[in-house]
Amino acid sequence: MNTFGNIFRLTSFGESHGEAIGGVIDGCPAGIAVNIDFIQKELDRRKPGQSDITTSRQEDDSVELLSGIFEGKTTGAPIGFIVRNSNFHSVDYDNLKEIYRPSHADYTYQYKYGIRDHRGGGRSSARETVSRVVAGAFAKLALLETGVEIKAYTSQVGPIVLDKPYTELDLNLIESNPVRCPDPVIADKMTAYIREIKISGDTAGGVVSCICKGVPAGLGEPVFGKLHVALGSAMLSINAAKGFEYGMGFAGVGGKGSEMNDAFYVRPDSKLGTRTNHSGGIQGGISNGEDIYLRVAFKPVATILMEQQTVDIKGNETLLTAQGRHDPCVLPRAVPVVEAMAAMTILDYRLLAGL
Amino acid sequence: MNTFGNIFRLTSFGESHGEAIGGVIDGCPAGIAVNIDFIQKELDRRKPGQSDITTSRQEDDSVELLSGIFEGKTTGAPIGFIVRNSNFHSVDYDNLKEIYRPSHADYTYQYKYGIRDHRGGGRSSARETVSRVVAGAFAKLALLETGVEIKAYTSQVGPIVLDKPYTELDLNLIESNPVRCPDPVIADKMTAYIREIKISGDTAGGVVSCICKGVPAGLGEPVFGKLHVALGSAMLSINAAKGFEYGMGFAGVGGKGSEMNDAFYVRPDSKLGTRTNHSGGIQGGISNGEDIYLRVAFKPVATILMEQQTVDIKGNETLLTAQGRHDPCVLPRAVPVVEAMAAMTILDYRLLAGL
Amino acid sequence: MNTFGNIFRLTSFGESHGEAIGGVIDGCPAGIAVNIDFIQKELDRRKPGQSDITTSRQEDDSVELLSGIFEGKTTGAPIGFIVRNSNFHSVDYDNLKEIYRPSHADYTYQYKYGIRDHRGGGRSSARETVSRVVAGAFAKLALLETGVEIKAYTSQVGPIVLDKPYTELDLNLIESNPVRCPDPVIADKMTAYIREIKISGDTAGGVVSCICKGVPAGLGEPVFGKLHVALGSAMLSINAAKGFEYGMGFAGVGGKGSEMNDAFYVRPDSKLGTRTNHSGGIQGGISNGEDIYLRVAFKPVATILMEQQTVDIKGNETLLTAQGRHDPCVLPRAVPVVEAMAAMTILDYRLLAGL
Amino acid sequence: MNTFGNIFRLTSFGESHGEAIGGVIDGCPAGIAVNIDFIQKELDRRKPGQSDITTSRQEDDSVELLSGIFEGKTTGAPIGFIVRNSNFHSVDYDNLKEIYRPSHADYTYQYKYGIRDHRGGGRSSARETVSRVVAGAFAKLALLETGVEIKAYTSQVGPIVLDKPYTELDLNLIESNPVRCPDPVIADKMTAYIREIKISGDTAGGVVSCICKGVPAGLGEPVFGKLHVALGSAMLSINAAKGFEYGMGFAGVGGKGSEMNDAFYVRPDSKLGTRTNHSGGIQGGISNGEDIYLRVAFKPVATILMEQQTVDIKGNETLLTAQGRHDPCVLPRAVPVVEAMAAMTILDYRLLAGL
Repeated sequence: MNTFGNIFRLTSFGESHGEAIGGVIDGCPAGIAVNIDFIQKELDRRKPGQSDITTSRQEDDSVELLSGIFEGKTTGAPIGFIVRNSNFHSVDYDNLKEIYRPSHADYTYQYKYGIRDHRGGGRSSARETVSRVVAGAFAKLALLETGVEIKAYTSQVGPIVLDKPYTELDLNLIESNPVRCPDPVIADKMTAYIREIKISGDTAGGVVSCICKGVPAGLGEPVFGKLHVALGSAMLSINAAKGFEYGMGFAGVGGKGSEMNDAFYVRPDSKLGTRTNHSGGIQGGISNGEDIYLRVAFKPVATILMEQQTVDIKGNETLLTAQGRHDPCVLPRAVPVVEAMAAMTILDYRLLAGL
Repeated sequence: MNTFGNIFRLTSFGESHGEAIGGVIDGCPAGIAVNIDFIQKELDRRKPGQSDITTSRQEDDSVELLSGIFEGKTTGAPIGFIVRNSNFHSVDYDNLKEIYRPSHADYTYQYKYGIRDHRGGGRSSARETVSRVVAGAFAKLALLETGVEIKAYTSQVGPIVLDKPYTELDLNLIESNPVRCPDPVIADKMTAYIREIKISGDTAGGVVSCICKGVPAGLGEPVFGKLHVALGSAMLSINAAKGFEYGMGFAGVGGKGSEMNDAFYVRPDSKLGTRTNHSGGIQGGISNGEDIYLRVAFKPVATILMEQQTVDIKGNETLLTAQGRHDPCVLPRAVPVVEAMAAMTILDYRLLAGL
Repeated sequence: MNTFGNIFRLTSFGESHGEAIGGVIDGCPAGIAVNIDFIQKELDRRKPGQSDITTSRQEDDSVELLSGIFEGKTTGAPIGFIVRNSNFHSVDYDNLKEIYRPSHADYTYQYKYGIRDHRGGGRSSARETVSRVVAGAFAKLALLETGVEIKAYTSQVGPIVLDKPYTELDLNLIESNPVRCPDPVIADKMTAYIREIKISGDTAGGVVSCICKGVPAGLGEPVFGKLHVALGSAMLSINAAKGFEYGMGFAGVGGKGSEMNDAFYVRPDSKLGTRTNHSGGIQGGISNGEDIYLRVAFKPVATILMEQQTVDIKGNETLLTAQGRHDPCVLPRAVPVVEAMAAMTILDYRLLAGL
Repeated sequence: MNTFGNIFRLTSFGESHGEAIGGVIDGCPAGIAVNIDFIQKELDRRKPGQSDITTSRQEDDSVELLSGIFEGKTTGAPIGFIVRNSNFHSVDYDNLKEIYRPSHADYTYQYKYGIRDHRGGGRSSARETVSRVVAGAFAKLALLETGVEIKAYTSQVGPIVLDKPYTELDLNLIESNPVRCPDPVIADKMTAYIREIKISGDTAGGVVSCICKGVPAGLGEPVFGKLHVALGSAMLSINAAKGFEYGMGFAGVGGKGSEMNDAFYVRPDSKLGTRTNHSGGIQGGISNGEDIYLRVAFKPVATILMEQQTVDIKGNETLLTAQGRHDPCVLPRAVPVVEAMAAMTILDYRLLAGL
């Protein structure tokens, strides 16, 4: 189940400390101009060591495209790619070979498979999302010419919450700070919180919000392939995700129908529109042409530099204090991953709709 | 995309006011004793007219099993089934043929397909969940002998919130009141709220919580087939769902790693366990043997008996006041649907794991 | 695995002697006019008792359409349908409950599932193909307006072979005789052979040929979804199929490249064409606009009215002499099934290609 | 559609003259010892330049395994791999950029995708089967310990036919000659024929036969996932395949039921067996424990070193005489590919059956 999507599909491989992370993009439309610089910039937004609030590990994460491209354009053939791993300290993990880190996947992988690559979490590492960012970049390139634009940002870090609706934010400011929050004041608070928690050896979680503009009406395949089902799957598959909501979400379901219904009206361009958008751009599982917006909850990073109770693989209780270089908070680096998953999903559903 | 699941699969059909709702259950293990009474009781928990806080429509929802069963047991062949529609007032919907009801799927279906069965929402009606309850009942029967038990309950109705953790509730009380809330005091408040809002012609949303006990460790297919991805897809596909969370969910991501990590320990039965369960029974996408718990947000019912602004199919702005018999709140009837989706998912993932 | 297809999909259910045969057609394009008479005529071509060379069982095989159609047109919603079983003599099969019929699926079903519906072969009966004919009729209706025409015929019965290429036959004669062979002289020989073998209590196999005209270039999804892969899957899934070939097939592979290559030329309508069509209309797994033609081999019917050595379910060797009403040769009734599978495949691949 | 399989799945990428051929193997059972030498030997059986009757191109085809393996064993994580392309003469193909080679995929790829990598056929080249051989080698390793053995051989080259049943052949002789035919006398004739036809600039097709021994009863998923459907898909997806048959195949369907039925008996080991095996080890789509045998027809190589009529991409008729190094007959190199596809299919179906 390392394949995502229906027509535009990513099959991903690679472990944190293996030879390479990579994948195969199948079903990419032919004739898309491949902008290598753009793909690399997307990877740079995800890479470790990009600021003082991420892990200090340095990895270049340079992608090698192996197939499916001819004279600068996609050919419709599958696009194989690899990103070599480098600058990893496997030795950092030697002490973890025999132990289950709390709230990591060490135990469940060992239990399920009877074997595990313990180095950096192996396959369960968020390093796997490198593949998603590469495939998402191709999806963005394909969507670009259709007028779809996808922007995600950090809307919560630990207890620091950006509670303005996205329509009141300047999304052009997202990349203006390392935490990727479009509100500069909140961004500073988030950054300060991450620095503080990093010093204490602890970690933070949070929420990423994502907006998809320009999605045409008609995308979505009822009843089990509703557009928000696909978006939910996409987001929940990201490491550390604990929740997904779109439109009014959890906070809105306490309202009344008369408050949360979206009245239809005729827009100045004579298309049908809704005066509010509590639906989040999706009705009955099908896009209605309004903005799609969604939120993804990420738990605090499981690796903390503090002593924890745990059990080793022989079944003995023991204590663990992690070492090495880790993210105190994944939110800033999760932003491009959320965008990538959204882009792949929207493109896949365009193709499913025969568009 | 009217098929759900990988090995245990439901393919569903039927419109609100068509001849029948039905489906095909494929991949059900052979040799399961088919308890017709149990299946019918599950349908009765979902059926309209079951109490004064649901719609007053009366439908018997009696299932006819057409194949896949021999001498009282499943044979491994697909199980076809139908539930005839009856007692419907199509005439109630004649005025809706030319109009798009706000926050319904009328517009998006018409846009996507160029045609729609407007009667009662046609295929987009929640009546489709009849099929899910039938298939879920088979999944429950198959899971029963493996020791898995699935219980859902209403944990929020409009602004009335049951905020106790499930571990402090007596889940045997769920069916003791029409709103399906295991806390009798909160249940009364919810019921009162629904009655009140019904009188005003308005509607309420809310949250269903679901607990899966006895799920063995090892279920889940990384990375895109994580167990919570499948559960999320299952839940988000239910009509009116706006969000999904499991374990700590949205509320928990503001905490610190040191607070939210689940310490491993050796249980009295010498199996590995966790002292807390913020993970919600799933780590790295694979079940760890602890309880799985999750929550699903449902928007307020879109059909309100109040005047609303909207647009007709010719593109003219108009006013709409719905009539007929409708649920003021779907939460009580959504409870068995959530259980059905959970049961199908857990069974499917057992089979995927070769168990 | 009772689902066939990618976008246009049939999920089938039902046993020979159960309540009903039926299915769900998912992904049928919206807006197709549903010609009930046509669907029924297709079923009539498959039904038992249609001539003296088929089984003398009489079943009306009348289809009930349950969903997905509104005011005479498909809506894009799934089409549920059932065909009630009737006039079956279960008692004919009582003696088969404890015995494995040679070259039937009795043993393998019992072994795999630990249980089986022995009546008439249960799920393994060719009666299941009723569902295929219904779904194929919808596919034909959808294809009709795109100019695709699919015709199959019996090209071999036992040792009687029609070895003319299809281009030298008048395909309008197919339905002029009960064996469905467009060459009247050969048809008579085939009919005589079937009558003769029926008297002896023995059975015959043979070959069905199928021609798809008007298929546009560009259908096919390399490398594992080549168009002929899909057609091969479709045909091999039919009961009693032992082989599939297209274009030059087995007989042609002994030729040289210089003989079997299809030279390109510019057709009078200035489209590209090929002077010969050894490729069978498919090159590199993608249709090239020429006729697609293929052949399917069907083994002789396994039920013979002669004494055979076999084993019972307790593992004792025993003798079996079948009784009841059986087809001496399935070929005439297989013709509409082959057409149905071809139609579903071609339509599915049109939709996959976004056409 | 570059993914094959259900649980054990290969996703393949790469063009003839791109950077690399490769793929991702998903769903490989954990704990399989990875024998690199064996994998390389399988590749060597497929590689060009291995004898004087194959193309004289030399490619080392050395595989690099990038993930999914830890301390010499599979971990259950996806196995990414690449085989770098080398020693290719792109210049050989410059003259083909503007022309459609007869009976190649040049035209259909250009038509479908609007762009094509013309070098060596790009994605449509049989060089893609490198990925299949790598994945097949993993499948063989996994099957080995379950007692399944798969052997294929060349049974026809041009008009030279090996018509003995496989049970009368010594399959250990397959690798004793370059044409991979277990009958030394026929092998010599085949080799002579290929040499002769090579000199004339022409090409030959033929048939590969394949035997699967030790397959347990119970594999196969009726009705659309019958075991022979999966095997048929597997084989027909190989480049140049024109037909597939198993058991009695086309040649046998002319016989009578009384001749072709396989009588059951009790074997000395007290298991149920069949006295003959016209069924080819599969009844009702499910394996019965007998040998599975099948045959695949391959057309003559389309590239001939002779003048041919064709059309260029501007639509003008022209003449083409191919140059360069080509296989006069692919049969010897197709043998390991057929085995690989059979191995993947059998393993996949074992896993589907929960074994």
